[in-house]
Amino acid sequence: MNTPPEPASRWQIAREWIGQGVAAIDTPTLVIDLDAMDRNLARMAAFASERGLRLRPHAKMHKSVELARLQIAHGAVGVCVQKTEEALVMAHGGVHDVLITNEVLAPPKLRRLAQAVRHLPTRFGLVVDSALGVERLADALTDAGVREEHKVDVYVEIDVGHGRCGVPPGETALVLAHRILSNPVLHFAGLQAYHGSAQHRRTAAERAQAIGEAAWTAARARERLQAGGFSVPLITGAGTGTFVLESSSRVWGELQAGSYLFMDADYALNEPAPQAPVFEHALFVKSQVMSRSAQHAVCDAGHKSHAIDSGLPAVWFPGGLRYGNGGDEHGLLRTGGAGTALPEPGETVWLVPGHCDPTVNLHDFMVGVRGGLAAGHVERIVSVDARGAVW
Amino acid sequence: MNTPPEPASRWQIAREWIGQGVAAIDTPTLVIDLDAMDRNLARMAAFASERGLRLRPHAKMHKSVELARLQIAHGAVGVCVQKTEEALVMAHGGVHDVLITNEVLAPPKLRRLAQAVRHLPTRFGLVVDSALGVERLADALTDAGVREEHKVDVYVEIDVGHGRCGVPPGETALVLAHRILSNPVLHFAGLQAYHGSAQHRRTAAERAQAIGEAAWTAARARERLQAGGFSVPLITGAGTGTFVLESSSRVWGELQAGSYLFMDADYALNEPAPQAPVFEHALFVKSQVMSRSAQHAVCDAGHKSHAIDSGLPAVWFPGGLRYGNGGDEHGLLRTGGAGTALPEPGETVWLVPGHCDPTVNLHDFMVGVRGGLAAGHVERIVSVDARGAVW
Repeated sequence: MNTPPEPASRWQIAREWIGQGVAAIDTPTLVIDLDAMDRNLARMAAFASERGLRLRPHAKMHKSVELARLQIAHGAVGVCVQKTEEALVMAHGGVHDVLITNEVLAPPKLRRLAQAVRHLPTRFGLVVDSALGVERLADALTDAGVREEHKVDVYVEIDVGHGRCGVPPGETALVLAHRILSNPVLHFAGLQAYHGSAQHRRTAAERAQAIGEAAWTAARARERLQAGGFSVPLITGAGTGTFVLESSSRVWGELQAGSYLFMDADYALNEPAPQAPVFEHALFVKSQVMSRSAQHAVCDAGHKSHAIDSGLPAVWFPGGLRYGNGGDEHGLLRTGGAGTALPEPGETVWLVPGHCDPTVNLHDFMVGVRGGLAAGHVERIVSVDARGAVW
Repeated sequence: MNTPPEPASRWQIAREWIGQGVAAIDTPTLVIDLDAMDRNLARMAAFASERGLRLRPHAKMHKSVELARLQIAHGAVGVCVQKTEEALVMAHGGVHDVLITNEVLAPPKLRRLAQAVRHLPTRFGLVVDSALGVERLADALTDAGVREEHKVDVYVEIDVGHGRCGVPPGETALVLAHRILSNPVLHFAGLQAYHGSAQHRRTAAERAQAIGEAAWTAARARERLQAGGFSVPLITGAGTGTFVLESSSRVWGELQAGSYLFMDADYALNEPAPQAPVFEHALFVKSQVMSRSAQHAVCDAGHKSHAIDSGLPAVWFPGGLRYGNGGDEHGLLRTGGAGTALPEPGETVWLVPGHCDPTVNLHDFMVGVRGGLAAGHVERIVSVDARGAVW
């Protein structure tokens, strides 16, 4: 018998699709409509620029160095991430300014971060909501030999209504700001005020109500700090569901929206806000029918191809189909009503994931298509560099 | 400035934990309690062996060559998988018998499978529920130069109540069996009869009802085939929720259960069946508290650390805590009642994932702990070789 050949890696297989039509893409595969993504990119860049706001897109969404650099090339000041390992992946990939929008208390993480602060040209930031957070960060930086010229930006997180992390506006925030300012390797960069749950409230009025209250809370926190003698350089926050509101509040100076680049099925359910830029779906799961009965067609994409925490995917085309839960590896496609035909075995079905962030995190790469999903070609393979970077 | 050091990969970091206590494990990380897993392994092996049944555990659950080989060393006849790429990973890892318990219609997948059939010593199997499936498989094998001595096992899938893939018992199954038998590179290996949704019905009576009907349907399909002159070598199916029922039915000859090895929070909600072996939770997410308010503690494990399609994780210890949805990267821990204290910042929290299969698929490796979660040590790192293998 011959020596068994080495298996082609999924990367190798995907790279061979470059230049070919979309039909070459095996399924299920995560696909970016590059034209739609580029339009989303330009619309958000124009929005932030016109209003004189800093845009720091959340790279927890795409986890891709290439897309982070693309956003920066279009005016973003840097990116945010949620996890220390994501920050390290971005920094090692050459992203010059990375904010971890999350509390980090674990000493091993802070040691790795401190090594990166010491050795990489990237400017790092972090948020805190406890004295322990400030102390452990400072200790890790000092232990790693970080000096004043490589200060880390530290933001105090204020809970502005989301009810997860953060401190109330008031005394605790003052104490934390004081602790930050009294340490030579930490820079008090301002406040983080992010209202996560407001992003997905369906009516524009509900979102306006929530962000109105968040703005009041964030402004009060700033005033208390200013009254205590602290300068508050920046308030950072906002997401794709509400950034228009934060922008018009004049409280926030920096927007952290991320999902705008890909737009998922969940965000598309929001009633649009007045004056909001229109973002298009740019992220799809290419799937195909692998079984069919009289009642339904079964496609080959289930929970291992797309996340369902924010609902099942929508079927993009062929139109008129509903996607039903078929488990980890299957989707059940049914017609929405009379006159719609079930797709045939082997036929392609394009899905819009319910939630882009955890969907991207399931995949090692995304296939970038130029010229539309129907007749376009594969332009490039985009690496999900920080896939699985949960530390 | 010095040249930036290469970042330590997460694999490198994890390998340094080997021999150290569980405290060394950064969070969130997927951890196997190896002692509990070994007991689960032995209990299922004993169950199948005592009843003279073939055990072919579903490797879609762990996606690990190491664990597949461990199951085979304990008497399993091989493994099943759900995806072609999973099959190739297992085969290239030396697993000698792999059944894809799923329909495969895509020519690129069938071409890769045919190359593996031609060049690897592994025995492969596949299920079909359409003439197209038989035809495309046969074409791919023939095109790859596969000869009679490397026949592929082909099972006709019967829908026994799950309502996803498969044909009804009757004429269609006969036609498919005939097509398989008339092709020299295909071996008609029998029927697949798997009732997926029955696995998670909560009462033993509901599951007995569903599997009773499934047994009747599968037996009828076999009788029709036998009446048509076909020999039906085997009926394969069953899962962790129902395998005791399939075993006592005398209809099934092979069990495909997979989750028994790790046991997740969802399966633990099932009322145990009489005579069922007891399986212990062996898969955990090690997490830690990274923020705390008066109302809740926030741990660092969210949807990107564990799948939530079958419910949120249970908190294993400290006891008395409930896990609430905190999004992709956070969990909200609240006390179940008076007398329970919230864990402190930095304190470890062990979670039992709701559903093991898609949880494992989020991670590149699992950390194997010996001697218990409280005071054990890291014995080895188990690779999730087929992570992301969705094709």
